[in-house]
Amino acid sequence: MSDRRLQGPVRVVGAGLLGASIGLALREKGVDVILDDSSPSTLRLAVDYGAGRTAQPGDEPELVVVCVPPDVTARVVAAELTAYPGALVTDVASVKSLPLTELRELGADLSRYIGSHPMAGRERGGAVSARADLFIGRPWVIAGHDGITYGRAAAVERLALDLGAVPIEMTAHDHDASVALVSHVPQLVASLLAARLTGAADAAVGLAGQGLRDTTRIASSSPELWVQILGANAAPVSAILTDFRSDLETVIAALADPVAPGARRAVAEAIAAGNEGVARIPGKHGSTKHFSTLVVMVNDRPGELARLLTEIGELGVNMEDLRLEHSPGAQFGLAEIAVLPEVEKRLVAELEARGWKIAGEQA
Amino acid sequence: MSDRRLQGPVRVVGAGLLGASIGLALREKGVDVILDDSSPSTLRLAVDYGAGRTAQPGDEPELVVVCVPPDVTARVVAAELTAYPGALVTDVASVKSLPLTELRELGADLSRYIGSHPMAGRERGGAVSARADLFIGRPWVIAGHDGITYGRAAAVERLALDLGAVPIEMTAHDHDASVALVSHVPQLVASLLAARLTGAADAAVGLAGQGLRDTTRIASSSPELWVQILGANAAPVSAILTDFRSDLETVIAALADPVAPGARRAVAEAIAAGNEGVARIPGKHGSTKHFSTLVVMVNDRPGELARLLTEIGELGVNMEDLRLEHSPGAQFGLAEIAVLPEVEKRLVAELEARGWKIAGEQA
Repeated sequence: MSDRRLQGPVRVVGAGLLGASIGLALREKGVDVILDDSSPSTLRLAVDYGAGRTAQPGDEPELVVVCVPPDVTARVVAAELTAYPGALVTDVASVKSLPLTELRELGADLSRYIGSHPMAGRERGGAVSARADLFIGRPWVIAGHDGITYGRAAAVERLALDLGAVPIEMTAHDHDASVALVSHVPQLVASLLAARLTGAADAAVGLAGQGLRDTTRIASSSPELWVQILGANAAPVSAILTDFRSDLETVIAALADPVAPGARRAVAEAIAAGNEGVARIPGKHGSTKHFSTLVVMVNDRPGELARLLTEIGELGVNMEDLRLEHSPGAQFGLAEIAVLPEVEKRLVAELEARGWKIAGEQA
Repeated sequence: MSDRRLQGPVRVVGAGLLGASIGLALREKGVDVILDDSSPSTLRLAVDYGAGRTAQPGDEPELVVVCVPPDVTARVVAAELTAYPGALVTDVASVKSLPLTELRELGADLSRYIGSHPMAGRERGGAVSARADLFIGRPWVIAGHDGITYGRAAAVERLALDLGAVPIEMTAHDHDASVALVSHVPQLVASLLAARLTGAADAAVGLAGQGLRDTTRIASSSPELWVQILGANAAPVSAILTDFRSDLETVIAALADPVAPGARRAVAEAIAAGNEGVARIPGKHGSTKHFSTLVVMVNDRPGELARLLTEIGELGVNMEDLRLEHSPGAQFGLAEIAVLPEVEKRLVAELEARGWKIAGEQA
C-alpha cells in the first residue's frame, strides 16, 4: 500500500474495461477512486466489482482519467477540465491527435490536459472483463503537446507506474503514426487477407498451416471498435496503406508475366524487404537479441509439455520464447523453443539423451 | 519394421531437405532407399547421414520420388519415367499444374506419373537439416490427373502413410489454388506488411505487440525459394491478390473521407469479412472446434511455466493450445492457454486457488 506514487483521489470517467481495470488496480494500491459513467447501471456494476466509489460533493481529484470511446473523448475531457479546475486530466483513447485538435476547437484549458494511451486491452469489453493487472509490463504512451510540460503532467506518469506499465513519452502525431504502423495497418491487412477465405473450399482451408493462422489471428477483432479507431486515425493509416498498395501493384505486375525480364527480381525484392522489416521488430522484453530455435515433438497427452519444460528448467536453461504447433490429424504437437544461441547445442544433446525427439533446429 | 506399406526399393532423386528426410524415414521402416543427386557431394552427404544408398546396375524401384526444385521437376520426372519403365514416379514440388503441363509437352508417359506435395518443410534446407519425422501428421496432397487412377498410384499413398503423413487427394488445379490461398498469398501479404517497418523509427516498432509479431512472422522466409514458388503459381496467386487489392482500394477510398456517407460501413464490412474468413480456419487436429482461452501470468524464471503446465496436467486438463506472450520491460510472460469450454471454469478456480494470477478469460 505504501509503494504507491499517486496520492489520489483519482476520478475515472467511463467504467468499461479500461476504466474499471484502472480503478481495480488503484484500489489495490489503496488509492481513493471515484468512478463515473453516463450509464447508471454500468457505474453500479463497476462499483460492485470494487473498482471505486461514486462521486460525492466536494470531491477534489488529483487526476481525472477519461476512459470513453474516441468519438466522445474530447467533449468529456473538456467537461472534466471545467468541473475540476484543480485536477490534471488525461484520456486513454487509442488515437491522440484527434482529441487534441477537438479540445483546441472547444477552447479547453490545455495546460491541465495530457493525452495518454495504454497499449493494453482485450477482445472482450466491460467492467466484467476488467483486471487489475491489465497494464503490467505494457507500454503506456504519454502524448505531450506544447501547452503542457511532462513535469506538470507527472501525475499521468505516476498513474502508469502505479499500474505496472512502462511510461513512454511521444507526441500525439508520433503516437498516431506509430500505432498506425504497428497496430492499425496490421489489423486491416489481416482482415483483408482473412476475407479471402470466406468463399474458399473446405479442402483448401484444410491445408492451412501455422503461417495462415498467425497472419490472420487478429482478423477476429470487433468491426465496431475498429471502425472508430481507423476513422479517427485515417490519415496515417491511409498513407501506409497507399505505400502497401504501391508494392502490391509491383508484385501483381511481376506475376502477370513471371518470366519477363525483371519480374523475378521484383518479387525477390518484395520478399527481401519483408525480411528486413521483420528484423526490426523487438523480441522478448523489447530487446532485438536473436535466439536459436529448436523444435521438439511432444505427445498430445496432459503433462507431456510440462514434463519437457520441467526438464529444460532442470538443465538450467531459460526459454526465451515458446510456441506450440499442432498438425491436422497428428496425436502430438511441435514445441518451438527459443533459447540463447550459446546454450542450444547442449540443450539439444541433453534433451535427445533424455529421449526427446528434436524435429528441427534453427540458428 | 513389419508395419511398412511400401516394399521398395524406393528411388529418391534430389538429396536435399525433402529427399533426405524421405530417405531417413523410409530407412527407419526398413525400406531399401536408392539416392541420387546431380551433385556428387550432396549425394555423398545424404548417404553419410543414412538416408539411403547409391544406385546399382539392375535396380528396379517400385517408386521414384523426385525432390528437385520446381523449375527442373518436369525434366527430371520425364528422365526417370524413361529410365525405370516399371516404376511409378511422383514429385514433391510445391506447385502441381506447371510440372504436369511441362510433362505433357515433353510427351512423358503420364500413366505412371502422379504429382504430390507434402505440406512440410523448414526454413533451412539440405540433407544436414533432414528429419525422419518431418512429415508426421502433415497433409500430403496427391494430385490426380486424367491419365492415371488413384488406384494405380497407390504407392504414393503408401509412401505418405509410411512417413506418417495424411494423404489428401486433389487435382493439380485445386492444389495450386488452395496453396495460393493458404500459403502463397499469406506469404506475400506478410512480406509487404513487414516491408512497411524498414524505415520506421525505433520508438514506433518499440510499441509492437503480439499482433504485429504474428502477422509478420513468416516474412522472414527466403526470397530465392519464394521467387521460384510464386513464379510457378503466378496465375492463382495473382487472382487472389487482385481481389485483395480491390478490397484494399475500397478501404483506402473510405479512409480518404472517413465521415462521408458509407465510409464507416465500408470499413466495418472489411473487418467483418475478416471475422468470417478467419472463422473458416480449422483449429488443432484439423477440427473447427472452438476453445476457451485463459491468460495466466508466469514469472520469467526457469521452471515457472513448467510448474504451471504440471499443475494443469495434475488437474487432468488437456491444453488444446498454448501461446506465450512477453511484454517489453516486464519480468514475466503471459501464457495464453486454450482448453475445452466445459473445463475452463474449474481450471480458473483451481489455478487461482493455487496462487496463479489469471490475467484474462475469453469464451
